[in-house]
Amino acid sequence: MGTLTADFGGIVPPLSTPMTEDFEIDTRSLQRLIEFQLEAGVHGLFVLGSTGEVAFLTDRQRATVLEVAVRTVAGQVPVIAGTIDMTTARVVEHAKTAERAGVDALVVTAPFYTRIGQAEILEHFRSVHDAVAIPLLAYDIPVAVHSKIEASTLLRMVQEKLVSGLKDSSGDEANFRGLILAKQNIHSDFLIFTGSELLVDAALMVGANGAVPGLGNIDPSGYVRLYQAAQAGDWQAARKEQERLYRFFNIVSVGLTRMGAGSSAMGAFKTALQLRGIIETNVVGRPMIRLNNEEVERVRQALITAQLL
Amino acid sequence: MGTLTADFGGIVPPLSTPMTEDFEIDTRSLQRLIEFQLEAGVHGLFVLGSTGEVAFLTDRQRATVLEVAVRTVAGQVPVIAGTIDMTTARVVEHAKTAERAGVDALVVTAPFYTRIGQAEILEHFRSVHDAVAIPLLAYDIPVAVHSKIEASTLLRMVQEKLVSGLKDSSGDEANFRGLILAKQNIHSDFLIFTGSELLVDAALMVGANGAVPGLGNIDPSGYVRLYQAAQAGDWQAARKEQERLYRFFNIVSVGLTRMGAGSSAMGAFKTALQLRGIIETNVVGRPMIRLNNEEVERVRQALITAQLL
Amino acid sequence: MGTLTADFGGIVPPLSTPMTEDFEIDTRSLQRLIEFQLEAGVHGLFVLGSTGEVAFLTDRQRATVLEVAVRTVAGQVPVIAGTIDMTTARVVEHAKTAERAGVDALVVTAPFYTRIGQAEILEHFRSVHDAVAIPLLAYDIPVAVHSKIEASTLLRMVQEKLVSGLKDSSGDEANFRGLILAKQNIHSDFLIFTGSELLVDAALMVGANGAVPGLGNIDPSGYVRLYQAAQAGDWQAARKEQERLYRFFNIVSVGLTRMGAGSSAMGAFKTALQLRGIIETNVVGRPMIRLNNEEVERVRQALITAQLL
Amino acid sequence: MGTLTADFGGIVPPLSTPMTEDFEIDTRSLQRLIEFQLEAGVHGLFVLGSTGEVAFLTDRQRATVLEVAVRTVAGQVPVIAGTIDMTTARVVEHAKTAERAGVDALVVTAPFYTRIGQAEILEHFRSVHDAVAIPLLAYDIPVAVHSKIEASTLLRMVQEKLVSGLKDSSGDEANFRGLILAKQNIHSDFLIFTGSELLVDAALMVGANGAVPGLGNIDPSGYVRLYQAAQAGDWQAARKEQERLYRFFNIVSVGLTRMGAGSSAMGAFKTALQLRGIIETNVVGRPMIRLNNEEVERVRQALITAQLL
Repeated sequence: MGTLTADFGGIVPPLSTPMTEDFEIDTRSLQRLIEFQLEAGVHGLFVLGSTGEVAFLTDRQRATVLEVAVRTVAGQVPVIAGTIDMTTARVVEHAKTAERAGVDALVVTAPFYTRIGQAEILEHFRSVHDAVAIPLLAYDIPVAVHSKIEASTLLRMVQEKLVSGLKDSSGDEANFRGLILAKQNIHSDFLIFTGSELLVDAALMVGANGAVPGLGNIDPSGYVRLYQAAQAGDWQAARKEQERLYRFFNIVSVGLTRMGAGSSAMGAFKTALQLRGIIETNVVGRPMIRLNNEEVERVRQALITAQLL
Repeated sequence: MGTLTADFGGIVPPLSTPMTEDFEIDTRSLQRLIEFQLEAGVHGLFVLGSTGEVAFLTDRQRATVLEVAVRTVAGQVPVIAGTIDMTTARVVEHAKTAERAGVDALVVTAPFYTRIGQAEILEHFRSVHDAVAIPLLAYDIPVAVHSKIEASTLLRMVQEKLVSGLKDSSGDEANFRGLILAKQNIHSDFLIFTGSELLVDAALMVGANGAVPGLGNIDPSGYVRLYQAAQAGDWQAARKEQERLYRFFNIVSVGLTRMGAGSSAMGAFKTALQLRGIIETNVVGRPMIRLNNEEVERVRQALITAQLL
Repeated sequence: MGTLTADFGGIVPPLSTPMTEDFEIDTRSLQRLIEFQLEAGVHGLFVLGSTGEVAFLTDRQRATVLEVAVRTVAGQVPVIAGTIDMTTARVVEHAKTAERAGVDALVVTAPFYTRIGQAEILEHFRSVHDAVAIPLLAYDIPVAVHSKIEASTLLRMVQEKLVSGLKDSSGDEANFRGLILAKQNIHSDFLIFTGSELLVDAALMVGANGAVPGLGNIDPSGYVRLYQAAQAGDWQAARKEQERLYRFFNIVSVGLTRMGAGSSAMGAFKTALQLRGIIETNVVGRPMIRLNNEEVERVRQALITAQLL
Repeated sequence: MGTLTADFGGIVPPLSTPMTEDFEIDTRSLQRLIEFQLEAGVHGLFVLGSTGEVAFLTDRQRATVLEVAVRTVAGQVPVIAGTIDMTTARVVEHAKTAERAGVDALVVTAPFYTRIGQAEILEHFRSVHDAVAIPLLAYDIPVAVHSKIEASTLLRMVQEKLVSGLKDSSGDEANFRGLILAKQNIHSDFLIFTGSELLVDAALMVGANGAVPGLGNIDPSGYVRLYQAAQAGDWQAARKEQERLYRFFNIVSVGLTRMGAGSSAMGAFKTALQLRGIIETNVVGRPMIRLNNEEVERVRQALITAQLL
């Protein structure tokens, strides 16, 4: 079933968005990728996130992703949707569309492009919260939006019951931990997920509810095993699994001499999915640069080393 | 008439977008603001820029602004439109809409939200250029998009004839000047506009074609006089005008103890326009914070000091 | 005994530098602080680090700290000394002085004030290594020096046998973990210490050799217990200890409305040491601002809550 | 004569520090460089600044530079000395040494390495001011010290009579201009010098007292001509001179593919001085990388193009 409850937790991969050669949504590959995730036992799916190239999709394409995801998941696990856009009026439009499409929760970042402070971030979440009836998760991702949702702002949102949880992609692990302690202090059932896909064992050890790992697109079973080991208190096994995944993660830098970090990471993920036979092409959204043959070959070798091919 | 020619130059204010109390476009105020600008003798108008709160407008609202601007200007000066969005597919949609609406040129930033490099910026401009028939201006605004269009990338765009000019809001005046020298070196008629509204006399002295001053919304005549003095080589008069405008510009910090820099600046501009009787309200796009009575009063005093009220 | 061996590990507090009312080294307080640390069972001591206000001490004062530390520790645990300065020639002078004073190892940062790249960082470590006979630890602290010692640079240093270990105060936990994996890959006995004093349990769980916690000045026993729990694989106990220490750590923000983060943190640490009766004054190096009575009172309450008073 | 008076102004090059092959001060080359500057008619000399590689010199070497400079200049123009170090106690030592050496004024930056706020910056200047009897100039150089001396802090320093002027190397030309306007407002005779060596004509046009151009080491006559043209109100001539100097300035990037920006710029300046026969070697302070033959050749070509060889 698909609701977000206080005991929700586990692995919630931020789903890649497969594309055709002409940059449209490859709906059959998308369906296959979702089925692959469900079979691996993931606990939820996050569509239209940064890894899902939400910034590269038109509104029409976003609607297609939502439709395919809700239909394919069919309530087996919660579907959470990104509403990424610059400011309130635009985000409210995305939020209403996603709610109508039937997702279970929404992910909302701080505003961007404009120079805002914490007062505006709080105001933004109030307005989005008022516009829909489904739960919101705050998405703290300074590398993309160039503001931080400060701990005090987040705790105010929790107090005002604007958000049900946090996806933390800030890379600030000390602040992340402070939020877990604050949650204990106020006896809240606020959900805390880490987006630090290389530190999932450590995040679970200190009390996180789960993780949203981009690499989970390619190896969801690995992350599910990691989560199960952590649930069983077997930190040695959790660590081993995380270390294997970390080593494989290095594929994200395969194209860095020719392109930006986004192109290289998205290209590596999609190439790995293609080589594993799950999606059709490794096309990435424009203006990202596509991996060349030599880079594809290096991803193939990494898959073999990680025993994923 | 409205085409962008090689001798285009002068003052091109980035038009504010007046709003009603319920955050919709106030089309009558917008029309009045445009007429006020034309009467002051501005040389062009830039709609849907950062000062125009483009980040805060829905696609429907953007279309309204374009319609009112093109109809009201009616070819008297060029109308240039921002196409601000995260990446190529979304920007191409805005670009086609604006072209259909009848604007004379488009303003395009580097992609944002995603981690891109110079290769992706170049690819982005190639795609947008291919999608429309009207000229593009590159908009270098790192404070908003958090990447810089490097000089070498811009010159490559000029060489490939992707862009007809630059609006520089980078605050990097040394780089700006380097571009003017590079333009001389390659005998290009590439247009170079500064967005540094406090340094317009200096920019014109070193060879800029013109300026896009946000403060021009409130005092277009001041900037037109500054430009005319510069054209006449009367740098003393140009400097005096710029100094008066600089002193008045301090209104942008009126709300900084309560809000972010964007809210404070947009609020101060709109309050000044309202107090001068040109627009109806000082409503700013959500989630920006609106100025309170005491802040409004300080803007009023500044208008009086600047002899604008 | 005081040598740095491949099995070295544990808690190595970065020693505060007690001062008299006229900003000189309070040698009796310093001696008492060192004895307090040794009694608590710390595994080493790091003098003249950032927490030791090395940036605020004259060369003469630095020499005094070295003399007192080496004499008081008397070989019971390794003494490691910071050589913090801008570039090579100056750092070499500090390194030779510390070596002559009898310390066991040196801590070296990337150069600062000047705009350097990874090539210069490598060259810097080569020169300092050539100038002394005792081991070096690399100190990665971008918040102070504004460059990062990249993983590839550090591994090159290890390969060239320039450094015996790392003190990581970068806050980049993913990179930190990558270094631990790289160390496994190359079968090196390179020592890896975290400076992230709020994440010591997690760091030990993923394979760190130890920690350099500023807060260890005030509660060395807490960190020693944390380390022992981790050694015993009792992660639940380690986590509990870390959580208590985290809550107490919030004293670092006691002065933030009046002063910078450095003044506030250094002042809070020294005030806590003074209130615990270990040092004489809470004087901080100039131009830092000293805590006022109300701020001192808040530190006292925090000590009581943490059961340290 | 060498005092700093309210009508002081003009070109004050930040003197390079020539070195021997073993990284010691080349005192004969230094003397020749100073004589070359005086013959060109510079209005003052700034020793031990960033261009003078102050960060790379030991205290003994700094003393040598001061001694040679004061002796060679012999009161013909003011000698201003940098006191660059991390915090107050260390800067006071440098300040007293320089005062004893006989310089006319001191240049003081914000503290660095440590996380300070504006309160600490103000406190720092108060302490340094109290320690010496000669005038201080504030040196705003965020690229090196990673804090900005905010306008309000600087104006407070002026009000408290702690500083007699500013050397602005912040690259923030709008803020620079705001300071000039503030100076007019308060009828102060505070001296304002720009370190933006590529925008000297513009800075003089808007009211700066003078410039501290690194490139002035190599072509002091060019900058003196620029200043004289500006004094005569011949902005066209000033601009032409600045444009020639700008084109030549591109030598600073000659080594960027192999080294950091500091190495490349210092190496290019010293290579140009060597090729012009003024200094003996192009040795730069450690750990900077030295230019190779191919890079030296490119500097030679640039000198020829600029008619400096």
